[in-house]
Amino acid sequence: MTYLDIPGPSVNALEKALSSFSQILGNENVEIFEEGLETYLDPFSFEGDKAHRSSAVIRPKTLEEVQAVVRIANENRVPLWVVSTGKNLGYGGSAPRVSGSVVVELSRMNRILEVDEEQSFALVEPGVRFFDLYNHIRKNNLKVWISVPGLGWGSVVGNCLERGLGYTSYGDHFAQQCGMEVVLPDGELLRTGMGSIKNSTTWQIYKPGFGPALDGLFQQSNLGIVTKMGMWLMPQPECFISVEAVVTEEKMLGPLIEALRPLKLNGTIESTLTIRSPLHLAAKKATRKELWSGNGAIPDHAIKDAMKKFGIGWWNLSFALYGPEPVVDAKLAVIRSVLEKIPCTDIVIRKQDGVDVREETVHPADLHRAGIPNLTPYAAVGWCGENSGSVSFAPISPMTGKDALKQFELVRRYASEYGFDYYGSFNASSRGLVHIFQIFFDRGSARDRKALQEMFPKMVSEAAKLGYSEYRAHLSYMDTVSDVFSFNNNAFNRLNEKLKDTLDPNGILSPGKQGIWPASMREIVRGPR
Amino acid sequence: MTYLDIPGPSVNALEKALSSFSQILGNENVEIFEEGLETYLDPFSFEGDKAHRSSAVIRPKTLEEVQAVVRIANENRVPLWVVSTGKNLGYGGSAPRVSGSVVVELSRMNRILEVDEEQSFALVEPGVRFFDLYNHIRKNNLKVWISVPGLGWGSVVGNCLERGLGYTSYGDHFAQQCGMEVVLPDGELLRTGMGSIKNSTTWQIYKPGFGPALDGLFQQSNLGIVTKMGMWLMPQPECFISVEAVVTEEKMLGPLIEALRPLKLNGTIESTLTIRSPLHLAAKKATRKELWSGNGAIPDHAIKDAMKKFGIGWWNLSFALYGPEPVVDAKLAVIRSVLEKIPCTDIVIRKQDGVDVREETVHPADLHRAGIPNLTPYAAVGWCGENSGSVSFAPISPMTGKDALKQFELVRRYASEYGFDYYGSFNASSRGLVHIFQIFFDRGSARDRKALQEMFPKMVSEAAKLGYSEYRAHLSYMDTVSDVFSFNNNAFNRLNEKLKDTLDPNGILSPGKQGIWPASMREIVRGPR
Repeated sequence: MTYLDIPGPSVNALEKALSSFSQILGNENVEIFEEGLETYLDPFSFEGDKAHRSSAVIRPKTLEEVQAVVRIANENRVPLWVVSTGKNLGYGGSAPRVSGSVVVELSRMNRILEVDEEQSFALVEPGVRFFDLYNHIRKNNLKVWISVPGLGWGSVVGNCLERGLGYTSYGDHFAQQCGMEVVLPDGELLRTGMGSIKNSTTWQIYKPGFGPALDGLFQQSNLGIVTKMGMWLMPQPECFISVEAVVTEEKMLGPLIEALRPLKLNGTIESTLTIRSPLHLAAKKATRKELWSGNGAIPDHAIKDAMKKFGIGWWNLSFALYGPEPVVDAKLAVIRSVLEKIPCTDIVIRKQDGVDVREETVHPADLHRAGIPNLTPYAAVGWCGENSGSVSFAPISPMTGKDALKQFELVRRYASEYGFDYYGSFNASSRGLVHIFQIFFDRGSARDRKALQEMFPKMVSEAAKLGYSEYRAHLSYMDTVSDVFSFNNNAFNRLNEKLKDTLDPNGILSPGKQGIWPASMREIVRGPR
Repeated sequence: MTYLDIPGPSVNALEKALSSFSQILGNENVEIFEEGLETYLDPFSFEGDKAHRSSAVIRPKTLEEVQAVVRIANENRVPLWVVSTGKNLGYGGSAPRVSGSVVVELSRMNRILEVDEEQSFALVEPGVRFFDLYNHIRKNNLKVWISVPGLGWGSVVGNCLERGLGYTSYGDHFAQQCGMEVVLPDGELLRTGMGSIKNSTTWQIYKPGFGPALDGLFQQSNLGIVTKMGMWLMPQPECFISVEAVVTEEKMLGPLIEALRPLKLNGTIESTLTIRSPLHLAAKKATRKELWSGNGAIPDHAIKDAMKKFGIGWWNLSFALYGPEPVVDAKLAVIRSVLEKIPCTDIVIRKQDGVDVREETVHPADLHRAGIPNLTPYAAVGWCGENSGSVSFAPISPMTGKDALKQFELVRRYASEYGFDYYGSFNASSRGLVHIFQIFFDRGSARDRKALQEMFPKMVSEAAKLGYSEYRAHLSYMDTVSDVFSFNNNAFNRLNEKLKDTLDPNGILSPGKQGIWPASMREIVRGPR
């Protein structure tokens, strides 16, 4: 328990807190590690990392236990790091920003409190995973669909709070969030929106409530612990159409985006649009070694060989349509006429009655678009061999061909220079275009580690110069990204830290998250502003 | 300047502040009234009201002037009441919650900073009215549509911050808001979301930014002055279809709502749905006196006579469809088959090329649905004669037939008991159902005043018992509504007031707005909690 890289509690205080946690939660829900909790490091991070090690993990089950945990942490000035189920892999997993923090894992708070079929919403605790919610809906034969991220093992609440995205028309997850229950850093309990009315009928119906809308305060935040959250769900569609199309030439990314934007803006395509680069698809058909055994990033000629061999394009578009059959048919006709002009090749359409869509009946490639949780993309994690790790760089730009090409050029240049494969995709769940560059590396490679450490801040900085920022960031780069928001001497961060000091004067809740530091650590981390 | 109902600044301090305001803004932008600024009372309120009188009105033009105003107010501890253009009529207009406040009117900050046709958004200052934005778009022949509230003379920013609604698919105005610039109560300048990046490309594209999403803090709030705001706009639709339908029987409200909900939830109807009661439509064809000259609320038999005479239904539905022609045609067919089953009568369809839709070419009843600002509903203000006033009661419920009927029964019972006409409508811009009961009265009538004062809190309280709350409230009822949010000893209000104390320690910004009071006034208003 000596890994606090920021002066924290004395060993004595930590031990006192851990003893109190055990009293409240039972010994079985408090795990203490003398050498830092290796298993609670992001499994996608480099090996032997000394940073981001927790001193213990505790697992409260009830709201009252969460409140007690917060009070004990305040009494002993022990920093907590709160995760729902800890599956924010590639961005830090369960690992804390400040080593020595006690990880509060909420996986035992796993009650599905309500799934309202008529009004199409769910109210869940943070330990509910996408698999759990889906299974509950299937078991009870409820006519609602969820939206799922790449990997279905994570928490519905955690994913939403970190602004994860899914692939249906409800893929912009935080835009579907409606109503929260939150434990504030001082243990006070809050309900947002309409949730504060006794017997409220609209807590999961009307988002903003009366007065300021506070839900946003608790996204990507260390200002409170969300213990219940409402999510709007998609009513089971009458008809489901999955669309895939291929663009063979690299430079056609521009025209493709230009053609899609009007369809996205006018609501013809409501689902998330995904455009994947070749390795995304090649990774499902071959190992990296089979494609390239030389040094550095996989070169263009090897990518082209793979494209030819597996019949994949440079840009591989996919999305879906949901609704009454005549409406989605009409939409499809409009879309088809646009795609044919790009030109897109290999336009594949799969159509199904919504009521028939299940994991057993749907095409495997359509699982995400049908809101069925799965672990399919996990296969890619082995891209760099058995000991693969991964970090994502995920900047947002306007949805224009010009911006997409600029993003692509920037990332590809760095990837090539530093010897990483361009494993990228463009995603539009709402209006912006999220460019997700998954950086795969060998977790044991000193070269890869050095290259990543050099490359990442440079990419952040060059993207910022073009007016782009990431919308989320790995633990190690939260400060780097936060610093980009520099308007008026970092007024945004200063306001967040003012709120932090007010709501969490002892700085016990997830210090450093998204670059927001409590007063006690601020100057140590970044010096005087 | 003696109307402070809360102990405020000394006359000396107020005079000092006003003199400083004059120095900064020029005498012509500072109006001082010795007897309280009558013209800045809500023109819809009762006559001779002593409450809500301002001591002066000031009109800054620039951001720097707003910052200076805030600093002067802090130095002299003078409460400000900020309005955009002051057209929040029926909810208080320009009048302040605390008499003696200096009204800060932002009508001179009227720059349209950007209308981006490609990305379909606008960035405007708070003085920009719906008319201004529309005229700018028409003049420059830009292919975007705005969404407008009932009366087009108000501020785009002000309406959005107060969570006004419009009638297109973008009718849920605050849901279209993207990015803000805000002057904090201490004069600091903030940009939210992606706006803090130098040369940001996504300030009006990606709402939440990195870290907590703070925009909600400044809605219906007294925590900052919004000086710039981004709004998403609807791309000019290829085709525009307006739909009107009539349900003749009162009790059919339930089945009508039940039939419409699935169409709203599955996106077939994206626009705001409006269902108006008979007097809404009768008011366009006759004066109240022509329908009824007796005492009390207009009785049922007179309503039925009017319905027969003017060919209107008990429930008069309207909405619109926007998009590629084959898609809206397909949607219309689906909707028609549903409406015919209710049964709805007099289904009227008007269809037009989007590019042709202008105030000159559109049917007068379609102005709102075509996003064209107008003052048509203003005619209703004269409902109770030349000296008519109005206050709205606007609770939200789930969109179910049962809830709609409960709301209707509750409001109608009170209206009848207290002698007010049931002038109501149901509106669904997003998932909830907003029941807007416009209470018309004679501004000079002591009876009406007494009846309203008795009735209003009773309605709020009975609605709350059923789990409903208003989403906005008149100045005089902000505390009444805020008190309904009582969960955990009013934790929501307590948190808002904690934020208030942090951001505005001198309590200078719009004290009392939405029931949020600064420390200096809290106990005086409501006693110890």
